[in-house]
Amino acid sequence: MKTLQNTRFLQALKRQPVDRTPVWMMRQAGRYLPEYRKLRAEMPDFLSFCQQTDMAAEVTVQPINRFPTLDAAIVFSDILTIPAAMGLDLVFLKDEGPCFSSPIQSMQAVKQLDDVTAIDKLNYVFTTIKKAKIALNQRVPLIGFAGSPWTVGCYMVEGRGSKTFQTIKTMLYRAPDILHALLSKLADCTAIYLNQQIDSGADAIMLFDTWGGVLTESAYQIFSLQYMTQIISQLKRDNIPVIMFTKNGGQWLESMLSSGADALGLDWTANIHQARKRVGHRVALQGNMDPLVLFGTPENIQNEVRRILADFGDHPGHVFNLGHGILPQTPIESVEAMLAVIGAGSK
Amino acid sequence: MKTLQNTRFLQALKRQPVDRTPVWMMRQAGRYLPEYRKLRAEMPDFLSFCQQTDMAAEVTVQPINRFPTLDAAIVFSDILTIPAAMGLDLVFLKDEGPCFSSPIQSMQAVKQLDDVTAIDKLNYVFTTIKKAKIALNQRVPLIGFAGSPWTVGCYMVEGRGSKTFQTIKTMLYRAPDILHALLSKLADCTAIYLNQQIDSGADAIMLFDTWGGVLTESAYQIFSLQYMTQIISQLKRDNIPVIMFTKNGGQWLESMLSSGADALGLDWTANIHQARKRVGHRVALQGNMDPLVLFGTPENIQNEVRRILADFGDHPGHVFNLGHGILPQTPIESVEAMLAVIGAGSK
Repeated sequence: MKTLQNTRFLQALKRQPVDRTPVWMMRQAGRYLPEYRKLRAEMPDFLSFCQQTDMAAEVTVQPINRFPTLDAAIVFSDILTIPAAMGLDLVFLKDEGPCFSSPIQSMQAVKQLDDVTAIDKLNYVFTTIKKAKIALNQRVPLIGFAGSPWTVGCYMVEGRGSKTFQTIKTMLYRAPDILHALLSKLADCTAIYLNQQIDSGADAIMLFDTWGGVLTESAYQIFSLQYMTQIISQLKRDNIPVIMFTKNGGQWLESMLSSGADALGLDWTANIHQARKRVGHRVALQGNMDPLVLFGTPENIQNEVRRILADFGDHPGHVFNLGHGILPQTPIESVEAMLAVIGAGSK
Repeated sequence: MKTLQNTRFLQALKRQPVDRTPVWMMRQAGRYLPEYRKLRAEMPDFLSFCQQTDMAAEVTVQPINRFPTLDAAIVFSDILTIPAAMGLDLVFLKDEGPCFSSPIQSMQAVKQLDDVTAIDKLNYVFTTIKKAKIALNQRVPLIGFAGSPWTVGCYMVEGRGSKTFQTIKTMLYRAPDILHALLSKLADCTAIYLNQQIDSGADAIMLFDTWGGVLTESAYQIFSLQYMTQIISQLKRDNIPVIMFTKNGGQWLESMLSSGADALGLDWTANIHQARKRVGHRVALQGNMDPLVLFGTPENIQNEVRRILADFGDHPGHVFNLGHGILPQTPIESVEAMLAVIGAGSK
């Protein structure tokens, strides 16, 4: 068995010294790439696209082929694969994003969700991982991922994206037992799902908690962090590092330290210098450039990259990334300008 | 001249001891009140409603008449009165919220905005304040307000609400001189506007920085905090306290201390206990219950109020409020449950 040619990313997650700061981008396999748009145009909807494992594997590898500076790939998939596999009807509406036509509103609806034994409906994700590993040919590690139970639950209960999260927060403050039943089921299913991703070849795991940051600190701990901690404790951890990312969670880093995650993701509102001082050497940090910086001039982009690298400072344990997914309209030259600084850097 | 019968709110803003924690709610004059909806139905659009000064004054006083526990009124108006007065065409679209049909995209467009001398277009706000003061009859203080230059600028440049703020952030990272010209003009105009609100009878001033929290820390300081600081320094401060509220700004409280604000608003993601320790006795704090808690059971509402009061602790300088505006669908009984705890409390 060949071994990975580039282990910078995995070493940084373990807070080991590396020759330079490793880098990847959330949503790096995405619409800002013309080669992605070309393949995507062949499929009617997003979930079908994910389920075409040849295409999904190809898309996973596209950014690695284009940008040799990238130090990790992430499997092309979606955080809503799990509720879809549980039997919830998922539709991707134009200008609306993903929607569930029958959102979860009762304990009965939670109980009617297909059990985790139905996980074979997610086989396409594992197949994509295997195919992507072959195509990557050990150039860089491959990240597997899932949404946090709270974040996936937000879509399942709201039915779609939300500004106020009125439906799920009403459930939280009025019928928390229903919400706990849902989150518990999601956590069990997610742990099985991620372990199968690891068995299929994933070299690291990331939990995306996009909506944990809309809660109060105490509700975050009870309804989001607790379930992520439970998932992490159930993972086959031998040498497989876990990154946990709560968007808008910069105020709560201390409480995340007991989750068992090897690294915490930071969005761009966090001061990475202070964040590092707060977490010490207990976890690595991943982040945290505003994806919108990539709409600026090359000089501003490169200054911002240098500022973030300098703010983190000369310690092990930094993975450079954006603070959220790269936007579809991002100019490719901006990505090149960003990567040029990191590729030239030393650490 | 009669003096105010209830000065609890003003005393707390000055960190003076009070008999109990004062309370008001952001958007307390709003659609959750049937008496508001009745008046609102008479007017075709929101800005016309604000410009009917008899109605706007009546709406300002409605929550004070209904809830004797409230310790302050806030003038019924909108943060987009200023760009409308500057000549930018404002339309309120159903399901879209406020939109500008010709958003600002160039230095020329900034220069073409009507100058602050055209502030007489805002006379309706000052008239509303005078009428509301009469109707309040010194029962409680009246808060005047404006949006922060950055937040108002977001609407003026994006043209409408935004998820990613791609247009204004592109301007920020590519043509910051245009953005500074716009923010500077807004800051000048806002200071004049707020001083006239004070002259008309406002007893306290609040700056709403709804979108400052979408920036990086350094961009926040340069493009939002700096201009709010400038406004505060230009206010006639004799005994008129100023509250500054940056939503999602909980990570940056320390940098807000030099703004000159007497009080900082906190959204519900902030831990008010830690926030108080961080700011010490330099400012009062206002907040910070999640408005969605009001969709929960009365027990959960009252527990959450008690938790926040206890978390702030037995110090002067707390104004209880929601962490954002009350939502239109909020049950009135929930507001009553919340106010019952505060009204019964001591401090």
